Amino acid sequence: MNSKELFQNILAKKSFLCVGLDPEITRLPAAVAGAEDPIFEFNRQIIDATHSFTVAYKPNFAFYESYGKKGMAALDKTANYIRKVDTSILIIADAKRGDIGNTSKMYARAVFGEMPFDAITVAPYMGEDSVTPFLSYPGKWAIILALTSNMGADDFQYHTDKGQRLFERVLSISQKWGTKDNIMYVVGATRAEMLADIRKIVPDHFLLVPGVGAQGGSLAEVVKYGMNSRCGLLVNSSRGIIYADSTENFAETAGRKAREMQEEMAGYLAEKFKV
Amino acid sequence: MNSKELFQNILAKKSFLCVGLDPEITRLPAAVAGAEDPIFEFNRQIIDATHSFTVAYKPNFAFYESYGKKGMAALDKTANYIRKVDTSILIIADAKRGDIGNTSKMYARAVFGEMPFDAITVAPYMGEDSVTPFLSYPGKWAIILALTSNMGADDFQYHTDKGQRLFERVLSISQKWGTKDNIMYVVGATRAEMLADIRKIVPDHFLLVPGVGAQGGSLAEVVKYGMNSRCGLLVNSSRGIIYADSTENFAETAGRKAREMQEEMAGYLAEKFKV
Repeated sequence: MNSKELFQNILAKKSFLCVGLDPEITRLPAAVAGAEDPIFEFNRQIIDATHSFTVAYKPNFAFYESYGKKGMAALDKTANYIRKVDTSILIIADAKRGDIGNTSKMYARAVFGEMPFDAITVAPYMGEDSVTPFLSYPGKWAIILALTSNMGADDFQYHTDKGQRLFERVLSISQKWGTKDNIMYVVGATRAEMLADIRKIVPDHFLLVPGVGAQGGSLAEVVKYGMNSRCGLLVNSSRGIIYADSTENFAETAGRKAREMQEEMAGYLAEKFKV
Repeated sequence: MNSKELFQNILAKKSFLCVGLDPEITRLPAAVAGAEDPIFEFNRQIIDATHSFTVAYKPNFAFYESYGKKGMAALDKTANYIRKVDTSILIIADAKRGDIGNTSKMYARAVFGEMPFDAITVAPYMGEDSVTPFLSYPGKWAIILALTSNMGADDFQYHTDKGQRLFERVLSISQKWGTKDNIMYVVGATRAEMLADIRKIVPDHFLLVPGVGAQGGSLAEVVKYGMNSRCGLLVNSSRGIIYADSTENFAETAGRKAREMQEEMAGYLAEKFKV
């Protein structure tokens, strides 16, 4: 999928919502706890209830790896299920990978060859050869961490060399490694005021924006400072949707929460693109 | 295992060698290609031939993940086999993980709870809450990327704020998150001349040093600039040992290559510690 196709999907669904699939066994509703594969069953019901309102899903690998073989099997089934339910959806491996060239090449093979993902989140600390192996798969994406939504973002991401903060250097240098059709950036919604600065460096790239909802970011602010002429935003919500309700109605509630976000997004899209 | 025990193991084996287990299906000798589990069979023979000369093994997760379920099963078997063969060996998950706190907690559970690893490599870009979840397991270690051995290290790791380079800031800030008994740092042997600067900031911590051998780093220089009063070094070699020979004698050759490195290390240890 290239950026034009992603923008078309956004206009068609009137949504730039990404739903984070971060299943924790201890938080799963009793209604699925007894299933043969509780993690997949939880995801399946969430996907069924939300896919009409979303353009992307983002399973977070840590949550699957922490349950060993069963977790990884559930991840694989989840990605394949999304692909089957809706072929237009971007499936993001939230894995924060990145290593020397010959190793990143293997990680790329894992998510794009062995598994049916369209994109992967990548940590930039090790530089160019740690990222470029993810860019050699046509139609696939590397989503590079720029400014993250967590407390720890303050520790290193603002390190400033001659007026240039580290996250700005990441944006500035890494955009030369690929194109707006195979690189996106992670920018936390909790740093929405920084989006204006970020758009000066990467006006055309898509941004994956976590932190709306549970982490406190505002969708209106993200849109105000981050939306570009092709939307250029994928806004992620995980806990605010998938754990909105712990009863047997969890999927119905997740669907409603996703629809509420989609409706707010539809308003912003209508305003900007007259759709 | 704490730093004192690790130092004792180093003195007992007269070695600070770590062997990287990075199996590539296409590079496996014909002698194991026909085995039921070729990756594990390759590792098993390498481990049998090298464990007397090593204090640590470092399976690189990418190489296992890229072969899907079979790869991950081979990884699990490999880690358990190392533990069985030699209980004193430090088993390092070379996985370069790191994410927001609730996610890093899940990665920690994956490697320390589900699998029998003693340590994990961690990327520092996301700061404190991305690292500290790995520090809450007694006897386990986070090995934080400081200055890596690859070309891409130049892209961001030397970004300089008021005279402090990014890798120096990582060392300086992150050492406050834990102790010399649960934090190590990755410093590439290809940057051996930087080890003197690094030792000014972290005099007591263990350093995991990749890049000797295939990547061109010199063991003598690493020792000269990096060894401290408790050795403080784990020097990794992967391709220089495990792919030294592609015939049916691969394990024997790997053993000889590991012994050669161990003997050179024994010389440096004898000189410094009179053992």
